[in-house]
Amino acid sequence: MIRKFTMGRPIITEAVTAEFMSEKIGAFPFKSKTENGCFSFSFAMRKDDIVYGLGEAVRGINKRGWIYESYCSDDPFHTETKSSLYAAHNFIMLGGSSSFGIFIDFPARIRWDIGYSKSDEAEITICGMDFDIYLITADSPREIVREFRAAIGKSYVPPFWAFGFQQSRWSYHNAEAVDRVIDGYNSANIPIDCVYLDIDYMDSYKDFTINESAFPNFKSYVADKQSQGIHLIPIIDAGVKKEDGYEIYEEGKANGYFCKTADGSIFEAGVWPGICAFPDFINPEVRRWFGSKYRYLLDMGIDGFWNDMNEPALFYSAKGIENALDEAAEAKGKNLDLGKFFHLKDVFMGLSNSRDDYSSIWHSVDGESVNHQSVHNIYGASMTKAAGDYFSEAFGEGKILMFSRASYIGAHRTAGIWFGDNHSWWSHILLNLKMLPSANMCGFLYCGADLGGFNENATRDLVLRFLALGVFTPLMRNHSALGTRDQECYSFENTDDFRDIIEVRYRLIPYLYSTFKKASEENELIFRPLSFDYPDDKIARECETQLMLGEECMIAPVYEQNVSGRTVYLPEDMRLVKLSGTRVEQQELEKGLHYIEVALNEIPLFIKKSKKIPLCQPALRTRDLDKDSLEYI
Amino acid sequence: MIRKFTMGRPIITEAVTAEFMSEKIGAFPFKSKTENGCFSFSFAMRKDDIVYGLGEAVRGINKRGWIYESYCSDDPFHTETKSSLYAAHNFIMLGGSSSFGIFIDFPARIRWDIGYSKSDEAEITICGMDFDIYLITADSPREIVREFRAAIGKSYVPPFWAFGFQQSRWSYHNAEAVDRVIDGYNSANIPIDCVYLDIDYMDSYKDFTINESAFPNFKSYVADKQSQGIHLIPIIDAGVKKEDGYEIYEEGKANGYFCKTADGSIFEAGVWPGICAFPDFINPEVRRWFGSKYRYLLDMGIDGFWNDMNEPALFYSAKGIENALDEAAEAKGKNLDLGKFFHLKDVFMGLSNSRDDYSSIWHSVDGESVNHQSVHNIYGASMTKAAGDYFSEAFGEGKILMFSRASYIGAHRTAGIWFGDNHSWWSHILLNLKMLPSANMCGFLYCGADLGGFNENATRDLVLRFLALGVFTPLMRNHSALGTRDQECYSFENTDDFRDIIEVRYRLIPYLYSTFKKASEENELIFRPLSFDYPDDKIARECETQLMLGEECMIAPVYEQNVSGRTVYLPEDMRLVKLSGTRVEQQELEKGLHYIEVALNEIPLFIKKSKKIPLCQPALRTRDLDKDSLEYI
Repeated sequence: MIRKFTMGRPIITEAVTAEFMSEKIGAFPFKSKTENGCFSFSFAMRKDDIVYGLGEAVRGINKRGWIYESYCSDDPFHTETKSSLYAAHNFIMLGGSSSFGIFIDFPARIRWDIGYSKSDEAEITICGMDFDIYLITADSPREIVREFRAAIGKSYVPPFWAFGFQQSRWSYHNAEAVDRVIDGYNSANIPIDCVYLDIDYMDSYKDFTINESAFPNFKSYVADKQSQGIHLIPIIDAGVKKEDGYEIYEEGKANGYFCKTADGSIFEAGVWPGICAFPDFINPEVRRWFGSKYRYLLDMGIDGFWNDMNEPALFYSAKGIENALDEAAEAKGKNLDLGKFFHLKDVFMGLSNSRDDYSSIWHSVDGESVNHQSVHNIYGASMTKAAGDYFSEAFGEGKILMFSRASYIGAHRTAGIWFGDNHSWWSHILLNLKMLPSANMCGFLYCGADLGGFNENATRDLVLRFLALGVFTPLMRNHSALGTRDQECYSFENTDDFRDIIEVRYRLIPYLYSTFKKASEENELIFRPLSFDYPDDKIARECETQLMLGEECMIAPVYEQNVSGRTVYLPEDMRLVKLSGTRVEQQELEKGLHYIEVALNEIPLFIKKSKKIPLCQPALRTRDLDKDSLEYI
Repeated sequence: MIRKFTMGRPIITEAVTAEFMSEKIGAFPFKSKTENGCFSFSFAMRKDDIVYGLGEAVRGINKRGWIYESYCSDDPFHTETKSSLYAAHNFIMLGGSSSFGIFIDFPARIRWDIGYSKSDEAEITICGMDFDIYLITADSPREIVREFRAAIGKSYVPPFWAFGFQQSRWSYHNAEAVDRVIDGYNSANIPIDCVYLDIDYMDSYKDFTINESAFPNFKSYVADKQSQGIHLIPIIDAGVKKEDGYEIYEEGKANGYFCKTADGSIFEAGVWPGICAFPDFINPEVRRWFGSKYRYLLDMGIDGFWNDMNEPALFYSAKGIENALDEAAEAKGKNLDLGKFFHLKDVFMGLSNSRDDYSSIWHSVDGESVNHQSVHNIYGASMTKAAGDYFSEAFGEGKILMFSRASYIGAHRTAGIWFGDNHSWWSHILLNLKMLPSANMCGFLYCGADLGGFNENATRDLVLRFLALGVFTPLMRNHSALGTRDQECYSFENTDDFRDIIEVRYRLIPYLYSTFKKASEENELIFRPLSFDYPDDKIARECETQLMLGEECMIAPVYEQNVSGRTVYLPEDMRLVKLSGTRVEQQELEKGLHYIEVALNEIPLFIKKSKKIPLCQPALRTRDLDKDSLEYI
C-alpha cells in the first residue's frame, strides 16, 4: 500500500506517475518536527534492521552508519566519507523488524542521518516546506520495491545493441583515433559494439556541433561505422557556450531559455567551452527546444548519447573568479600568516561547484522565478527528459541509447545512468557492485560503472577484474580519463584474457537482455541483495560482496589484487559455472563457505539447483548474435 | 648471506650498522642499465611469486601491480593510487620461485615498478648514481628479514607504559581540555595511559615553548598527571618559527644551523607557525644542538614525544606564493579560458610540498653543499636521530617514548612511527593492518595507525572496530583532526563496549610486550603475513585480512560496517578465543573457512593448538597491571 503525504505546494517533478490521494502531513505516522524551515522525521532501527536505498551513493547496500545528502554533486572522489554523488535518489526502505519504504519527492536538499548521530535511529531532514512523502508498506523489501516501482513507472529499456561491450576514453580526438580503437578490438578479436566520443568531437565544446577537421564528413563516417556494426556515442553537456553567432546560444538567448541571475541577466559560468549559459531545463518549453536539437546528430546517423555535466557542474563563475583574484591582489606583498594563506588557497579550491554560485541561479517555473537550490536535484534529470521526450516522440520507445550522469527518480523512465567519474581503485569494484541493487530499487536498470576506473592509472589485472563485474551490468563500458594510461583491452599484454571475458558477456546477452526486459515489465530488480532472497540467513543477510542476478543466479566478482580466487558464501546448494570464452566448467557446491579459484580470464557464476540459463555463441557484434540457437547451462 | 654493491660515493645514512665489504656494482647479479643519471635493474616474477616490503606504503602486503616511489610525502589522502606516504623504506623481498631481499641505501628518490608496466617484471630505478645496494639471500622470507634486520641493528623498544592506551586530538587546547579527557576516561572506567598535546600547546607553534596561558605551571601540571599515571606527549615539528628573539631561531641563525637556499640565505617556508627556518638535521652538529633542546620539556617531566611535519611538510614557500599572486594579478580583468583557469587553480593547489621548493633547499654535508633532493628521505629520520641520540645519552635506552611521521630505515633503532594522517574510512582498517608486517620487515616495530581515523568524521562502530585492530598494535592511539566529530571513547553511546575492548588490550600487554621485546632481540616480526608461516597453502598465501602475531596467534579484525562477524580462514586447527573485558570464550575450530560472529565489544583471537598465551587482570593504568599473576589461555 502507498500513502501520500503532502506539505505545502510541492514543485512538480513528475517522479511519480500513479495517482494517489494526498493526505495532510499531520497524518504522517512518524515522529517529526519543523525547525528552521526544514521538516525532519525519524524512526527507530533495531540492531539487525537493514536500511536499503539511496540509489547511487557511497558506502554499503546497507546505508546504516552515515549521513547522506541528496544534492547532485560533480565530485570525482568517491570515498567513504562523501555524502553525495551525482544523483539524488530519495528512496529508502527499512527491512527487518518492520518493513516500509519512503520516497520523498522534493528536488532540493535532503539530509539522511541513518544512524550516524544515534546508532539506533534514522533522522531525515527535508530542507524545505513543500514536498510529498510516499510511504510504501508491503510484506517484504522486494514487494515494497515492486509497489514503489509501479508508482514511478516502467524503467527505460535501451536498444538491444546497448548490451554490447563499449569503449570510451576522454578523448578519441578524431576519426583516426576512433578507427584505431575499432582496429585494436578487431585485431584482437574482442567483441565491441560502441565507441564513445567525449567532449573533443565537438567544435570548441559546443553542443550539437562537430569538429569538422577532426571528423570530416561525419555523416558518412557514422554510416561507415554503422556498417561495421559500431555505434558512435557522443557526449552532450549541459552548458551552452556563450558565443555570438552560435545557433544554440543565440536561440536560447533570444527566447529567454537560459537560467538567469537575480537581476534577470543570463547566468554565466565556466565549463569546458569556457563561459557558458545554462538552459532552464525545468521549463517544459526549454526542454522541447533543447530536446529537438539532438536532431542534428540523429540526422547524422547517431543513435546513442550520454548527457554529462548536468548537476550542473560549474568550474567557476565570473563572480567567483573575480572575488578570488581580488583576494589574491589584496594579499600581494603582505606577509601572509597561516590563516590568510589557507583562506586564499581555499578560495581558489572552492571555485568549482560552489553552492554560492548555485544560489545565484534562477529558473522560471510556471512563470514564477524559482531559485536553483529549490530544483537543483531535477536539473540534470530534466535535461535527460528533454532528450528522452524528443526521442520517444520521434522514434518510439527504446530506439535511442541514452544515459546521464546527474539523475532523479523519474528519469529512470527515459534513460539510464552511469556511476560517474570513479577511480581505478580496487575498492571501486565493490563500491560499484553495491550501487547496482540500490540503483535498481530506484528504477534505474540500465546502469554501470566506468570499468577499469575513470580517474588515474589502471593495471591490467584491475581492468580484467572490473570487466568481470561489468560482464553482468547492463551498461558494460570501459572508460578512462585524459592523461591516464591507455585502458583499452588491446593496450595490455595477452589480449586473449580480455577476449575470454568479453566473449562471456556476448554469450550471456540473450539472458541478460531478457532478465532486463522482465525487470522493467514487472518492476523487479535485476540485482538483488542476498538479504532479499535469504532474509533468515544471517551470513547471507550481511553479505555485500555478492548479488543475486535475476531468478536464477548469484554473482561474486573478485575485487582484490594479487589473488587467484575468493571466498564465496552459498546460501543454498548451487552450481558453480566458470565461464571463459566458449569454455564452460561446472561444479556442484553445497550451501556454505567455499574458496573458489578464479583466473583473470574467468567469470564465476552460481546457478540455483533447479534453474538453467541460456548461452548463445559469441560474436564480434551484438547484431551477429544467433539468439535462436541457445545452449542451456 | 648479504652482499653489498656500491656505486659512486653514497651519502652516509647510517641505515646499516653491520660492516660489509663493498663489491663493484658491475658484480650486481641483475639485469641493469644506466640512463639519464639513473640506475635501473629488473627481475622476473613468476605468477605465484609475492613481492613483500616497502614498509609504510599503500596497497597490499604483496606489492605487485603498482608503481611506488620512495619520497617522503606529507599527503593525507592514502588512496590506492598514491605512490608515496610519509616514509621511504627501501627494502623489498621476493618470495616464491626464488627468495631474496634487496635494500637500497640511497636517500633520494627511487621508483619501484613492481609489475605495473609488465605484469611479470619488477623494474627498480634509483634516481642517482651514488648508492649502496644490499642483496640478502636465505632460505625463506622470514630468514631474509632476520638477516636484513641483523644488518640494520636492533629495533627501538619504548617504555612499558607506551603499550597503554593513548588518546590524542588536534588539539586539546589547554589544561582543562586535557583534564576533561582524563575525567572522561576515568568516569567511564576505561583504561588510559597517555594524552597527546598537538600543536596548540606551544606558544605560537614554536618548538620547545609552552603556551603559558593555556597550560599555566606546566611542570607541576605534568607532575600532577604523572601522579595519576598519565603521560602527556607533546608534538615537535621540524620547522622553527622565524621570530626575532626566539631562542631556537636565534641560535640556529647565529650558528648557521638552518637549511640554506642556493644564495646562502636561510631557506624559509610557511608551516604552522607561519614562516619557518628548517634545521639542517643532516649535519651531526645540528642534530646535537636540536636534540639537546628536548631538554626543556624533559625538565618539565615530559617523557614522550612525537616528531611531526618532518618530510619536511611545507605549506608554501615565499617564492611559491609570490609567483601564485603574480599569476593571479596577471589574470585580473581578463576573460580566462579553461586552460588558464585550471592553470591558475593548479598553481594555488600546488603551493604545498612543491618539489620545486624542495629543490631550492641546500644542506651542508661534511662541509659540502648538498641539494635537499639528494637527502630528502633522511631529513625526518635525522630529526628523530637528533632526539634519539640525545635521549640515549641522557637516559639510556628505552626511557623516552618517541615516534615520528617521516622515516627511513635506520630510524627504527631510535624511534617508532605512526602511519600518518589516515582517514576515518573502513578501508583504512585493512590498509593499516597490511602496513604492520611490511613496517616490521623494515625494522619498525613500535608502530600503529590513528585509530578511528584522523581525517573526517568517524562513526561509533568504526572507532570500535579500528580499536579492535589497535588492541594488537604496539602503538594504540585514538587520534582525530581539527573540525571532526569528537572521537574519544567516552564521546559515544554505551561506553561499556569501549571499555570491553580496551580492557582486552591491558590484559594482553604482558604478552604483547614480551612478544615485542623478543622481536627486537631476535630481529623478528611481530606481525607476519600468513604466507610466511604457510607458504604451501594457497588460500593462506594470498590472505591479506589476517596476520600471524608472535609464535602463538593469528588475528582477524572485522573491517566492514554493518556486519556481525566475518569469514576467517584457518590454515590449521586453532582455538578461537573471544575476549571482551574480562570475559574469555573459547572454541576449537578446524582448519578451513569459518564464519565467526564478532560483536562490537569483542576481540577474536586465534591461538595455535599447542600454544597458550598469558593474560593479566585489567587495570586503569599500565603501572597498575599485575604482571606476576597471569592466567594462561
